[in-house]
Amino acid sequence: MQAQDSNNDRISPLGALSGLLDYDMKAVNALIIEHMQSDVPMIPQLASYLIAAGGKRIRPLLTLACTKLYEGDMGRAHRLSAAVEFIHTATLLHDDVVDDSAERRGKPSANAVFGNEASVLVGDFLFSRAFQLMVADGNLDVLRILSDASATISEGEVLQLATQSNLDTTLDDYYKVIKGKTAALFAAACEVGPVIAGQDDKTITATRAYGMALGMAFQIIDDVLDYAADQETLGKTVGDDFREGKMSAPVILALQEADDEEKSFWQRTIADRDQTDADLAHAQKLIEKHDVITKGMALARIYTKQAQDNLPKGSELATCLNALCDYVIDRNY
Amino acid sequence: MQAQDSNNDRISPLGALSGLLDYDMKAVNALIIEHMQSDVPMIPQLASYLIAAGGKRIRPLLTLACTKLYEGDMGRAHRLSAAVEFIHTATLLHDDVVDDSAERRGKPSANAVFGNEASVLVGDFLFSRAFQLMVADGNLDVLRILSDASATISEGEVLQLATQSNLDTTLDDYYKVIKGKTAALFAAACEVGPVIAGQDDKTITATRAYGMALGMAFQIIDDVLDYAADQETLGKTVGDDFREGKMSAPVILALQEADDEEKSFWQRTIADRDQTDADLAHAQKLIEKHDVITKGMALARIYTKQAQDNLPKGSELATCLNALCDYVIDRNY
Repeated sequence: MQAQDSNNDRISPLGALSGLLDYDMKAVNALIIEHMQSDVPMIPQLASYLIAAGGKRIRPLLTLACTKLYEGDMGRAHRLSAAVEFIHTATLLHDDVVDDSAERRGKPSANAVFGNEASVLVGDFLFSRAFQLMVADGNLDVLRILSDASATISEGEVLQLATQSNLDTTLDDYYKVIKGKTAALFAAACEVGPVIAGQDDKTITATRAYGMALGMAFQIIDDVLDYAADQETLGKTVGDDFREGKMSAPVILALQEADDEEKSFWQRTIADRDQTDADLAHAQKLIEKHDVITKGMALARIYTKQAQDNLPKGSELATCLNALCDYVIDRNY
Repeated sequence: MQAQDSNNDRISPLGALSGLLDYDMKAVNALIIEHMQSDVPMIPQLASYLIAAGGKRIRPLLTLACTKLYEGDMGRAHRLSAAVEFIHTATLLHDDVVDDSAERRGKPSANAVFGNEASVLVGDFLFSRAFQLMVADGNLDVLRILSDASATISEGEVLQLATQSNLDTTLDDYYKVIKGKTAALFAAACEVGPVIAGQDDKTITATRAYGMALGMAFQIIDDVLDYAADQETLGKTVGDDFREGKMSAPVILALQEADDEEKSFWQRTIADRDQTDADLAHAQKLIEKHDVITKGMALARIYTKQAQDNLPKGSELATCLNALCDYVIDRNY
């Protein structure tokens, strides 16, 4: 992973973090490949298709960083980082089935290539593998943290499904959705670090709060980018959320400022899901008109500020984790 | 649960087991209802739709029986029985999505009522809840047994997908599929009992072997009934496996005796999935012609014999578990 800021040639905080944890990420990647093996050939085929497609590996990096920050056992962190990435990969597979996505990370999605059936079942397999890795670690606190996160993720996903196409969805409803579907796993990925390092409750709570707030900001920006980003840079199909009628931050913010004509537009496209080819461009125009990107970034910044307030000072890793917050806002991937 | 043998009015071994464990099953049902709750209303709605539809609850009964047989802590058995049933329910939800089933237990399936999306996500939720229940129990051996079983279930399901429509599928391939998709959870459900009762390895291995063999027989008969049973008695749509091109025991056994014309029939209907309304009746005729039901029952009996050999003698519960083996073969549900 050589994540570089495409605006200039400096290494991004994500790249810096990957650099500091290069040895550990290699160990995690080896564990991921080892544990996605199975006697049933379709499982490693599908899993490696998705995992080889790349992705930022931000969640396992957080587990590694938060373990190293508190001088925990890195061997255990490797295993648990792989578990965290498996949980994430399982939810991606199931998400793409739920959203009927055609692309993921700029490639045809796994469900488009292997079928929905295989995606559901291999998702289940990876989820089970995650638990096997946690059981091998043997710490019940970690098992509790990650099984709680898993339950919360599916609650967030179901809530998202329930708010789909519902124009009455508030920003608070939206926050509940993304807290479940995204921030809960960021929080758990971070919390695992000080837990296996045997830190006190105050440190554990702060590290968890860092991950939770970072995850909130990450998802808000992700949702904003779905209306703003250049498709090729983003490496995913722009406009997916619009086509699926998702009540994400940009739509909620644009609706707050909408006149009657604009309200009819959102009613037709998001609530009634009656869309033409020209509608995405018009939606993006409304998003621009009401300065929604800037507003969304401001909301995300409230969370990254929270995240930064929960970090210790001083070490190179802490500095990276701090810079990562700003990077999450400024990224254009 | 008042499972009665419909051929006469004697209580079936399943009914007798439910009777002996009536207090415990009520406790398990209460835990199931308690733990399927969520702030997201669609989750208990969908889960209770499926769980209220009934079902035999055979897996939690096995956990309860195998715990009581060895005088284990029944409070722990209640929680773990609920976990086992949640794992099973999650796989049912995902199965119905994978098979695109319209009915389950004589009612429209959850995916038909709530949509595939919700079924995938609520399945994930119940699976996570299962792990939360196991973590609350706190025994790492139990967590290992059930997370291993979960991984094996999805491997079996993926293998089933890979053998679908493949007429070269052997009886051995089929055994691998059903060992994964069904017998592994029966085995784990039983094994948990002597594990929490602190029994020695020999007892644990024998109890696991009982569950594994019972599960094999259970699935063979289930597959045979899909070609033989009367739809109303079975409480599920007969012929589902045929329509899905599943290479289950009846097709494999019928193919072994098929002449060229019959081979062409199976080629068209199972391999090419080119079926007309009259084909299921013709398939059933071929099954009957080659005495496949009797042959399937004979295969299942090899397994129930194995299961019975692994049971201790003497107690009322052991007698019930023994009789359950014969009942699995003779049932017509």
